[in-house]
Amino acid sequence: MKIRTGGVTAAKGFEAAGAEAAIKYQNRKDMAIIYSKKPCTLAATFTTNVVKAAPVLWDKKVVEESPFGQAVIINAGIANACTGKEGLDYCSRTAKKSAELLNIPEDAVLVASTGVIGMQLPIDRIEAGVEKLAKAKAETLDAGTQAAEAIMTTDTRSKQAAVEIEIGGVKVTLGGMCKGSGMIHPNMCTMLGFVTTDAVISKELLTRALKEDVVDTFNMISVDGDTSTNDTLLVMANGMAENPEIQDGTPEYEEFKAALHYINESLAKMMAGDGEGATALLETKVIGADTKENARILSKSVVCSSLVKAMIYGHDANAGRVLCALGYSGVQFDPEKIDLYFESKAGRIKIYQDGVSTGYNEEEATKILSEPEVTVLVDMKMGEESATAWGCDLTYDYVKINADYRS
Amino acid sequence: MKIRTGGVTAAKGFEAAGAEAAIKYQNRKDMAIIYSKKPCTLAATFTTNVVKAAPVLWDKKVVEESPFGQAVIINAGIANACTGKEGLDYCSRTAKKSAELLNIPEDAVLVASTGVIGMQLPIDRIEAGVEKLAKAKAETLDAGTQAAEAIMTTDTRSKQAAVEIEIGGVKVTLGGMCKGSGMIHPNMCTMLGFVTTDAVISKELLTRALKEDVVDTFNMISVDGDTSTNDTLLVMANGMAENPEIQDGTPEYEEFKAALHYINESLAKMMAGDGEGATALLETKVIGADTKENARILSKSVVCSSLVKAMIYGHDANAGRVLCALGYSGVQFDPEKIDLYFESKAGRIKIYQDGVSTGYNEEEATKILSEPEVTVLVDMKMGEESATAWGCDLTYDYVKINADYRS
Repeated sequence: MKIRTGGVTAAKGFEAAGAEAAIKYQNRKDMAIIYSKKPCTLAATFTTNVVKAAPVLWDKKVVEESPFGQAVIINAGIANACTGKEGLDYCSRTAKKSAELLNIPEDAVLVASTGVIGMQLPIDRIEAGVEKLAKAKAETLDAGTQAAEAIMTTDTRSKQAAVEIEIGGVKVTLGGMCKGSGMIHPNMCTMLGFVTTDAVISKELLTRALKEDVVDTFNMISVDGDTSTNDTLLVMANGMAENPEIQDGTPEYEEFKAALHYINESLAKMMAGDGEGATALLETKVIGADTKENARILSKSVVCSSLVKAMIYGHDANAGRVLCALGYSGVQFDPEKIDLYFESKAGRIKIYQDGVSTGYNEEEATKILSEPEVTVLVDMKMGEESATAWGCDLTYDYVKINADYRS
Repeated sequence: MKIRTGGVTAAKGFEAAGAEAAIKYQNRKDMAIIYSKKPCTLAATFTTNVVKAAPVLWDKKVVEESPFGQAVIINAGIANACTGKEGLDYCSRTAKKSAELLNIPEDAVLVASTGVIGMQLPIDRIEAGVEKLAKAKAETLDAGTQAAEAIMTTDTRSKQAAVEIEIGGVKVTLGGMCKGSGMIHPNMCTMLGFVTTDAVISKELLTRALKEDVVDTFNMISVDGDTSTNDTLLVMANGMAENPEIQDGTPEYEEFKAALHYINESLAKMMAGDGEGATALLETKVIGADTKENARILSKSVVCSSLVKAMIYGHDANAGRVLCALGYSGVQFDPEKIDLYFESKAGRIKIYQDGVSTGYNEEEATKILSEPEVTVLVDMKMGEESATAWGCDLTYDYVKINADYRS
């Protein structure tokens, strides 16, 4: 596996662009396209929120019913959620306009929106944006970067990853991009994430690979515990690498899954580290759990705790809050077995041994917690299973951003 | 039912005091006692957190195994949680010291602690505090207030309530106090709450009344989603009103339950409104739900949402966040049926009708959201059930308080 630069245009035959469409933001790119020269096999996961945005309803139908997909149109600023029939009509109009300009079937066009809930899209500006995107789309890595920048809302940096593997002697590439950075608590999905690959792989296998991987990647991050109405993670495979088709139960499938995992984990961590207002990436590794599922629940409970998040912001080793968060996770365990460490580039320190404070050095702990990436390592001493979750600190800026997000 | 002033000393035969013991805070009262002249029937609920503080373990045993209880010793500053055998020994030593001074059995003494997790209690200062409390305890309302003040941590005001009813022609009084104000997300319990009454009632009936009521009062509030290691709600009934014993299935039982509900709801709302850093009490009423339990889940999901809480702080009618929080609560419903209103002393405004924005007046909405008590009213239009939950806004001060709580 070879890590590469770039994002959604890293794989063969994928084009992208970003464009200024003034949907809500002014003087910045706020619409993006991903386009494949050849029809793509699709796999996707969507929000589990009962309140589903119109684009989620539209895309679900395309992924389940269309023979293939070939383009995605994305806008930032307005989420097209809680918009009723009118909102759904706008998805259809966006797809129609795109299909005409790109000369592809209407049901091969996916749409995605992110931003304020409850506002209607300015459909004229969306359609004008589609025209710009259709003209500007290009195969370059830079075009992928422009798309990644265009889909940002409160994100402070764009998020891309790409990787290269070999399948049957043939080079296969995967690339992706995503955006956060508030209302992030994905459940079988993420806010908006897009992965492209030139691999030849069946829809069934691609879907399985995706479902198996999200539980340990996108589903293990949280910024604020709010599962969005728009969460979408879409994988497009156009087969242009012309590798021998990836088969179930083979080393090639494992290699492909590892590559997909790399992309998903990289994007998920970027999203957590760039959570709204965040100054630090908070990683929680739970080891020695009795089951994998319990390890996941425990580690996620810690990254979701407001008090742990505020502790990271304050660089204060108030680790009792970590034990508290483990304790209310719903998992049964013996608190008097737990060992707990803080870890970062600045070192590693044991804070709890068998559930009781070690009398550690506060100054050293503060130094470790002052790094931009901090790991909380918890050993449950119950078994062999482990899991990792990612979040970020809770800061004044999170409050500031969300107290006046719409203005 | 007659609302009265005062708290834990409102009912006949109860004494209280607060004292400076320098457990962690300096120059303020930080220990309290509640003492009954006669032995009390006890009922209690405790944290569901797997990590239980030593006083919770101690009190559970007293409530379950002792024939009666007669005194509670409370300290603020250190939670005596994650303190192992040493921490449990300190509960025992506190009870022993109190029993000697008060001339009551050791197993009639309950203890409660609130504050930092993972630190050991300075037991000498605790014992010195018990001596002061035993001397100072008094039956006055002022003594109750001093106790309520002594148990505060990040609370900005003390929390008390009292009420009077008639049972078989006899005056019966209930009074209570509690403290918040972070790590508040009670589950069958609250942070620290104490209710005293002079009613004659059996342990079985008192326990049932308490369990039936907490699901709609203390369990319906949240400040930060963190269920503490120390949550304790204790009811003490000393029988000194000498009413005919309250019997199950009678109007007298209903009257007693209504009085207990008044105390619990009053204290719970005070706790929510004085959440760490809060500038406003956030009330969410869900009506028209299909089941009572779903109404509870829906309303609690809204008051727990970081994004809704930040919206209240910003006085910004970004109500899509409310629909989003309803949607990820786990309850199934039709989003296109929902009506949503904001309400306060400044008026009432409809924001969503059948799941779509009404195109309301933003200025009017902001005015309504700028009051210190704000209600989000949601009509699910699915049935007849309703529930109310309480929380507070998410502010800079919440972050400030929790980024350096220990310093």
